Amino acid sequence: MNIRTDLRPEDRTLLEGLLRATGFFNPRELRVALEVIDESLARGKKSEYRFLILEDEGKLIGYACWGPITVTLTSADLYWMAVHPASQGKGLGRTLLETAEMWMAREGHTRVYLETSTRQQYASTRTFYLRCGYEIVAELPDFYEPGDGKAVFVKMLPRIH
Amino acid sequence: MNIRTDLRPEDRTLLEGLLRATGFFNPRELRVALEVIDESLARGKKSEYRFLILEDEGKLIGYACWGPITVTLTSADLYWMAVHPASQGKGLGRTLLETAEMWMAREGHTRVYLETSTRQQYASTRTFYLRCGYEIVAELPDFYEPGDGKAVFVKMLPRIH
Repeated sequence: MNIRTDLRPEDRTLLEGLLRATGFFNPRELRVALEVIDESLARGKKSEYRFLILEDEGKLIGYACWGPITVTLTSADLYWMAVHPASQGKGLGRTLLETAEMWMAREGHTRVYLETSTRQQYASTRTFYLRCGYEIVAELPDFYEPGDGKAVFVKMLPRIH
Repeated sequence: MNIRTDLRPEDRTLLEGLLRATGFFNPRELRVALEVIDESLARGKKSEYRFLILEDEGKLIGYACWGPITVTLTSADLYWMAVHPASQGKGLGRTLLETAEMWMAREGHTRVYLETSTRQQYASTRTFYLRCGYEIVAELPDFYEPGDGKAVFVKMLPRIH
C-alpha cells in the first residue's frame, strides 16, 4: 500500500473508473471531479488542488483531493475522496483521510471542511466522517436538488510547530 | 444607470479600485476576487462566472459576480457584490442583486446561496441580505479565521416557465 501525491496523466482514466465504480457520484459530480483532475494536470504545481493517490501493488485503488480555502486564513476543503468498492472495509479510507489531514496540518491548516449529501444512500459516508472525528456544522436542505440536502462537516486539526 | 453583463479588460483596474474603496474586503478576498476577474477575462464565454457591471453616466460604480454551483441541479452562488461607497444608500445594491436574481431564474436556478462574515463590521451587509429576502441557513464559526465566522444565506427563486 502506497500513497503518492503526484497526479499523473495516466491516472485520469483510472480515477474516472474508480469514481464510477463507487456508485456514489452522480453525472454532475463526476463531471466536476474530472474537470478538477484535468485542471490540475494542466496547471501542475500551480494548481491549488492537492491529490493523494492510493495504490496497492501498483494498482490505483483510491484517491483524495483537497485544497486550501483561499479566502480563509487556515481552513482547507476536502473536495473528493473515494476508495474502490473491492478495497473498502479495510480502513483504507481512514488512512487516506488521515494522510490528507497530516498534509493539511503541515501546511498550517487548522480546520478541515467537507460536504456530503444528507440522503439515506450517504448514511455510511456520514458515519465514516463522524467516526474520523468530524462533526456536522451545518445542513442545507435541498442544496444539491429537491430532497437532496448538503451536510457540512468540520474537524479541527492540531497546530504543528 | 445601466447594468451590462460583458466583462471588459478595462474593468479590471476599476473593479480593484471599487473593491478597495468599500473597505469590506481583506487582502485574501481581494486577491481571490481579482483571480476570478482574470480567469473570466481569459476564458470569456467559457467561464462559469457571470458578471453584472453597474454604471452611472459611464462610470463603473458597482458589480456583482455569480455562477451556477456545478454539483447542484438548480443552485447558484452569489460570489461577490460591491457598490462604491459614494453611491451607496440609493438602493443600487438591491437593484444589482435583483437583476442578478432575474438572470439566475432565467437560467433555471431556484436557490441562491451567498456567504458573508459573522463579524460586527458586516452587520449592515447581513441586514441588507435579510431585507432582500434572504435567510441565514448556516453559521460556521471561525471559518475565515479565529473569531471570524461565515454566515450562509439562501433565497428561493420562483420557477420561470
